Amino acid sequence: MRIQALPGFRDFYPDTMAIRSHVFGAMRRVALRYGFEEYDGPPLEPLELYTQKSGDEIVAQLYHFRDKGDREVALRPEMTPTLARMVAPKATALKKPIRWFTIPQLFRYERQQRGRLREHFQLNCDLIGETGPLGDAEIVALAIDVMRELGLTAADVRVRMSDRRLLSGILAALGFDAALVPLAFQALDKVGRSEYAGRRQALIDRGVAAEPIARLEALGSIRSFEALELAFPGLALGGELRATFAAIEAMGLGEFLDLDLTIVRGLAYYTGTVFELFDAGRSLRAICGGGRYDHLLAALGGVDMPALGFGMGDVVLTELLKEKGLLPTGGTAADVFIAQVTADDRPFALGLAHQLRDLGFRVEYAIGDQALGKQFRLADARGARVVLVVGPDDRARGEVGVKDLARGIQGAVKLDAVAAELTALGCMRA
Amino acid sequence: MRIQALPGFRDFYPDTMAIRSHVFGAMRRVALRYGFEEYDGPPLEPLELYTQKSGDEIVAQLYHFRDKGDREVALRPEMTPTLARMVAPKATALKKPIRWFTIPQLFRYERQQRGRLREHFQLNCDLIGETGPLGDAEIVALAIDVMRELGLTAADVRVRMSDRRLLSGILAALGFDAALVPLAFQALDKVGRSEYAGRRQALIDRGVAAEPIARLEALGSIRSFEALELAFPGLALGGELRATFAAIEAMGLGEFLDLDLTIVRGLAYYTGTVFELFDAGRSLRAICGGGRYDHLLAALGGVDMPALGFGMGDVVLTELLKEKGLLPTGGTAADVFIAQVTADDRPFALGLAHQLRDLGFRVEYAIGDQALGKQFRLADARGARVVLVVGPDDRARGEVGVKDLARGIQGAVKLDAVAAELTALGCMRA
Repeated sequence: MRIQALPGFRDFYPDTMAIRSHVFGAMRRVALRYGFEEYDGPPLEPLELYTQKSGDEIVAQLYHFRDKGDREVALRPEMTPTLARMVAPKATALKKPIRWFTIPQLFRYERQQRGRLREHFQLNCDLIGETGPLGDAEIVALAIDVMRELGLTAADVRVRMSDRRLLSGILAALGFDAALVPLAFQALDKVGRSEYAGRRQALIDRGVAAEPIARLEALGSIRSFEALELAFPGLALGGELRATFAAIEAMGLGEFLDLDLTIVRGLAYYTGTVFELFDAGRSLRAICGGGRYDHLLAALGGVDMPALGFGMGDVVLTELLKEKGLLPTGGTAADVFIAQVTADDRPFALGLAHQLRDLGFRVEYAIGDQALGKQFRLADARGARVVLVVGPDDRARGEVGVKDLARGIQGAVKLDAVAAELTALGCMRA
Repeated sequence: MRIQALPGFRDFYPDTMAIRSHVFGAMRRVALRYGFEEYDGPPLEPLELYTQKSGDEIVAQLYHFRDKGDREVALRPEMTPTLARMVAPKATALKKPIRWFTIPQLFRYERQQRGRLREHFQLNCDLIGETGPLGDAEIVALAIDVMRELGLTAADVRVRMSDRRLLSGILAALGFDAALVPLAFQALDKVGRSEYAGRRQALIDRGVAAEPIARLEALGSIRSFEALELAFPGLALGGELRATFAAIEAMGLGEFLDLDLTIVRGLAYYTGTVFELFDAGRSLRAICGGGRYDHLLAALGGVDMPALGFGMGDVVLTELLKEKGLLPTGGTAADVFIAQVTADDRPFALGLAHQLRDLGFRVEYAIGDQALGKQFRLADARGARVVLVVGPDDRARGEVGVKDLARGIQGAVKLDAVAAELTALGCMRA
């Protein structure tokens, strides 16, 4: 029996790898344009790095084991603990704000979830050492620009934003006791969904009256700062979030933004702005989620610095791109194919192939001696744009034959004009 | 106590990550120019994938464990078994020759080796479905061109090549029994090194006479096909290897090649050409090793196709580049820094930053409101080439101030000329 890949792990054949490279390339370009620097850490870390923040419950979701040195280790399920570990010893030396990004492969192993992926890749961008609302704008704008770089518009993707500080102000105004805030966040997170009934009951059981619960539910319909002001007049709530919105609008990206007070984010550590990117049709899971977590690094690594960031996985994003017809179609393995008429043309063909490769062109040729027709079939199979035909007569004239496969046009060019001709025919340089 | 990375695992801070990206970028560009397509597989595979080829001895070197589904799994120590697993089900559908490359992270865990890396990255290039000697030339030339792309010359790096078929012919001519060939290969591999004495004794113990042993030793001094012909006249040995040399010479890369009959390669599965890349000074371990393994895929995955390839690790190569002063020095986080004179300039500065990012420039600015001097210090720390100064007066004139930090030149440009000015000042587009 043939050995298979482990369940939940993907093989990236060249066609799917080309899609992955396309998506990662867009992520990387946009992060670099925002002045972010790439970093990476080990895919395997001490188990303790994850349990110290999340407690032992997280272990149930981890790929973890005991290594030969008797260490408890885990395949990384997320990048933030590694980030905190790496920043901690260099915190004073690094110029703030720290702008770092990475695209790690992450791993989860929940025993019961058959058929689900156990690994995925995730763009992580973090901005560390900055408290102001323009830092939040920078992070959200970066996420939006990855969408734009991939061809998605505000009609395809929406950024739903809220702010934990704003929500805390609202809950205080509604008379929620501080001890009930986590429970209220949990309810808010589920407004409009089937799980909401249970969360609502939990609030009632804790003695919350009907009116504050009704007003909590109504937060879901507040879609503008004007509506917020009308609902809570004179409280001047959400100053930081307004400043963040204004900055994103000044960048020309305002059309992507939705104020959505039901965005809470499940993780306990967010302290300010929280946001999620969704497809506009809401048929898929979240594309990206993030926010401000000013106390998390201290909790993880002992360095107390404000920070915010996001994680953007490859799976949902790629699904959306596929849906919208924005994935690259059948790439070419080589742009240029060199065919030889006789076996004597071989050394010349090899020299030409190497010169063109040195110039950056993607060049292939038949390795064994083959009939010209067979060589052309291989050129076709590779998706070549151009076949250069090397034969004794052309060589004697210092020329090569050129066939444009797409247009079926044939001709001959002087050797010193080959590179320019290839560029004119649309061949790219790697 | 702070949690550390696991022993043998590297943290890639932005400065080392920039080096890794530089090396991977060169590998990727050159592979693409040779018409190779990138693939990837899971970093975790069934343990059996490795034991079926190498037997249970390999387990001592693996990072392996039993997962929650009671599967024996291992972090991949090499890529070829994954390649064989992936090619097998598609073998008939894929157009031959298959030209695939990948740059996986690989893992080994030998308990006794303290202080050694337990992970590294390795460029793997494989050419599958081709028996001719020009396939071997293609693979060796690709390895050489990665060196050249990184700035290394034939004075820095040597390709030492041999051929198992040629060596078998020589051993037969010397009267070695077929059963003794593996032992003779082991001795040849150690000629000129301290371990040779033991290998020599093993041959003597098996009854090999002094003369064939002396002639085996003398193979190390054969450095040309002419010398080979003199030593073994009339045998016409090494036809395939000569054709491979000739093809690499036709590509213009002959100066990198050394015929070296002591190159055997430790792994049992090579069947033809074998080669290693070394620094010319021989002060480092091998940079790259590979060869032809025509029966390996059948042994691994049930598909019988000729194949050859190489693995090129990142560690030794990076050491050599460092030694030769060929590593990129302190990259810049952002080329362009936008400074604002007053808080009122903020929306304009944000809009400008975003426009320039959209054009591909790497742009940063101070997130909080800061004095101009402090903004310039941040620009310096980021390695910016240019500071664009946005102030009320310039804005009124439809201009921005431009300061070239390297040359200390200051001026002003019209808004529609900013992008051209940045390009003229050497700012690149991501």
